[in-house]
Amino acid sequence: MTDKGPSMTTPASADVRCEILRAAATLFAAGGVSATSLDQIAAELGATKGKIYYHFGSKAELQTEVCKYSVRLMHMAVAPGFHAPGPPGDRLRRMARAHVLAMMCNRPYHRVVVQTYMGGSTSGASGTERAFLDDLIQMTDAYAAMFREVLAQGMEDGSMRRQNLSITLNSVLMMLNAPVFWYHPRPDETEAERNGIAEQVADMALGAVLSPAPG
Amino acid sequence: MTDKGPSMTTPASADVRCEILRAAATLFAAGGVSATSLDQIAAELGATKGKIYYHFGSKAELQTEVCKYSVRLMHMAVAPGFHAPGPPGDRLRRMARAHVLAMMCNRPYHRVVVQTYMGGSTSGASGTERAFLDDLIQMTDAYAAMFREVLAQGMEDGSMRRQNLSITLNSVLMMLNAPVFWYHPRPDETEAERNGIAEQVADMALGAVLSPAPG
Repeated sequence: MTDKGPSMTTPASADVRCEILRAAATLFAAGGVSATSLDQIAAELGATKGKIYYHFGSKAELQTEVCKYSVRLMHMAVAPGFHAPGPPGDRLRRMARAHVLAMMCNRPYHRVVVQTYMGGSTSGASGTERAFLDDLIQMTDAYAAMFREVLAQGMEDGSMRRQNLSITLNSVLMMLNAPVFWYHPRPDETEAERNGIAEQVADMALGAVLSPAPG
Repeated sequence: MTDKGPSMTTPASADVRCEILRAAATLFAAGGVSATSLDQIAAELGATKGKIYYHFGSKAELQTEVCKYSVRLMHMAVAPGFHAPGPPGDRLRRMARAHVLAMMCNRPYHRVVVQTYMGGSTSGASGTERAFLDDLIQMTDAYAAMFREVLAQGMEDGSMRRQNLSITLNSVLMMLNAPVFWYHPRPDETEAERNGIAEQVADMALGAVLSPAPG
């Protein structure tokens, strides 16, 4: 294993990759993955298709890389809350807020994730595409595992209602993902307003899992 | 207005329509709308494409009719809880349970609704397709309005937390819709198990909106 060689990603080429991913995410999110061509993405970039192919082997690879980028962003945003000390409820609240904010800030990427998981756009996937997808599934599983663990801890210590853990996890994650469907940023929206939205969604997610107050 | 004439839907032709809708929903849900052809649906039915075209003008019309059928089923299931007497929390719980059960029982139809709203498969819609879609949006709006009203009543009487109503509605509906993503019926699943799932999801939705118990 060497860190040199033609496949080494230089900072400049990393920038170009990010630029391509951003253009792809924007067009995929707006028009749907299947209706968007590499030609359109190249045009958006003011570049040739060759430039895209230099960095990504196919549209399917580009789609998966958009998704992986999205999951990486979410993971980085949520991990500090997961690793923080304190009771499970407090950590879940912090994770939930971070999840919603990260999603609002990077909405196009997350819309592509939803399309990838939902739209059937991966049906008929080739072997290579299947491998990309397996990679992505592993990443989202690792992401969800943080929420699963903190929920399990809350049920264990009694601060959260003891109920089916998988249903709880899926329900909470879906509520936290909901803004990807309904959130449309206003041009004059303030950071305080964005925080308020994240706060309300996090409060609702907590309410869905916390044990009722005694009395 | 007359109830006779060539466009009258006879019981037999209504059955055929339902059969076509069921085949379309099953294939659309499994393989994605855009990847499914009318030929495949005809093959599934053991019929010709002509039979489908006799009842539905286009694939887009078939897709929208699958969705409308889905929303109609949900509306019928949820309306009794909405119109029931009693406090908003009790009515919401009944509506939530009915929503989840109806969705679990008619999963393929609901997956098509999700694809239609999410997958970008309606981009580039023609005028006629746009009209179908407007119709569908009106129906889902009327459906959501039942939940909006009961949530507003709960906030009004203080039994539910006073917070942004649209965010509350969207979050609750998304949590209630989540089973369409994660629910896969087991062949040996009992009615009691299905009821248990619906019960847990309804409990979580209630927890997300109810005011914390005083004390």
